[in-house]
Amino acid sequence: MSREHIRIVLVRPTHPGNIGAAARALKNMGLADLRLVAPAAALDHPEARARAAAAADRLAQIRIHATLEEALADCRLVIGTSARSRHIEWPALDPVEAARRLVDAAALGWPSALVFGPERTGLTNAELDRCHFVVTIPTDAAYPSLNLAAAVQIMAYEIHRAGVPAAPSAASAHAPAEHAYLQAFYAHLEEVMVQVGFLDPANPRRIMRKLVRLFNRAQPDRDELDILRGILTAVQRRLHQSF
Amino acid sequence: MSREHIRIVLVRPTHPGNIGAAARALKNMGLADLRLVAPAAALDHPEARARAAAAADRLAQIRIHATLEEALADCRLVIGTSARSRHIEWPALDPVEAARRLVDAAALGWPSALVFGPERTGLTNAELDRCHFVVTIPTDAAYPSLNLAAAVQIMAYEIHRAGVPAAPSAASAHAPAEHAYLQAFYAHLEEVMVQVGFLDPANPRRIMRKLVRLFNRAQPDRDELDILRGILTAVQRRLHQSF
Repeated sequence: MSREHIRIVLVRPTHPGNIGAAARALKNMGLADLRLVAPAAALDHPEARARAAAAADRLAQIRIHATLEEALADCRLVIGTSARSRHIEWPALDPVEAARRLVDAAALGWPSALVFGPERTGLTNAELDRCHFVVTIPTDAAYPSLNLAAAVQIMAYEIHRAGVPAAPSAASAHAPAEHAYLQAFYAHLEEVMVQVGFLDPANPRRIMRKLVRLFNRAQPDRDELDILRGILTAVQRRLHQSF
Repeated sequence: MSREHIRIVLVRPTHPGNIGAAARALKNMGLADLRLVAPAAALDHPEARARAAAAADRLAQIRIHATLEEALADCRLVIGTSARSRHIEWPALDPVEAARRLVDAAALGWPSALVFGPERTGLTNAELDRCHFVVTIPTDAAYPSLNLAAAVQIMAYEIHRAGVPAAPSAASAHAPAEHAYLQAFYAHLEEVMVQVGFLDPANPRRIMRKLVRLFNRAQPDRDELDILRGILTAVQRRLHQSF
């Protein structure tokens, strides 16, 4: 069962009922790995148990992480969720495409994550920067704000529908590096950009965000990141030699 | 807007929270006609209002019927919902097919209904006998029982999807740079790699070829290539300063 590799991550959820309903939605759809990042709601709240129904056994198995980074560290594919068209600069997927990518990755044994933001605000831009893709569930423009558990239910349904694919050949598959490995490259890249004085004084985060988006889109593997970091290290060595 | 002809009918719902959540799910997905048959739950319950959120205005518009027959009287298409394979004797549709039929009927101006049973028991056989088709939402065999509002949410989502032409994804709005623009970046990158002494002596083309594959995969646009070349130029400027 490859769907064990798909984790659903709720960032700072505030309503215990939504956590219980999400646990039920996952169990209904054959998913098991629910993670919470810095939850504001208690898992033992009666409403969590009530909404979980026969998935109440799953509440004790939910893993809690202090940071999103920690929750994603070993993931090779990260898809964030966002309300419609706010984040047009991220590579966008519809729910069917997103589910297909998660299931394909799981079939290769790659830990992959689908990330949901807090009820009122959704994911921040900095959190979306950690995602290879952003999925938007289509809604009516007059009231686009889905309940958190409802959004989890729809995506869990699409993941279940996407099912187990015809096994992609592992040999031909490109294996994106784990989240933590990729983040270490971004930190190194930013360090060198500072050292060579390449920053936008008006908005120093802007350029880095654009680069993150570019590389996220390419989903570099470890070998490629090693080459890029080799170039960065060579640049640093030359700068230090000459000072 | 033909979706006004599609009505969602909840038969004997018992949880006010589910009614509120169903009202929200409909409003999120551009549907407006929610009917209840002999509800055991009160519409003015605080949990109904809480779960409805910004769809609380819709609670007052819900029509109540004494019998299913009354709720369906003018409908030309009736689709009932049922948990998996219990009711194999009815013509079965999957959610996508069911949504397509409801939207097609609505486009012809036909009043059509999608009917959900009570939380614990679902629709009776006598109630399913009133349906032209039965739709089953696929679930995991270990826990097939969906929450009522979750089932309404999934079907409302499919109806919305069936009615809206596939939106061009933001990914397709990304305009990759022209070939010559990209090649100029590769030449610049190679130049800097030579200047900082980053080359594989055994096979100098190998690393460059890997980088070309990485960046080709990302399909950088002009803006992104300008940033990358800006970094390369900043590196070169620092190297020249210090020689």
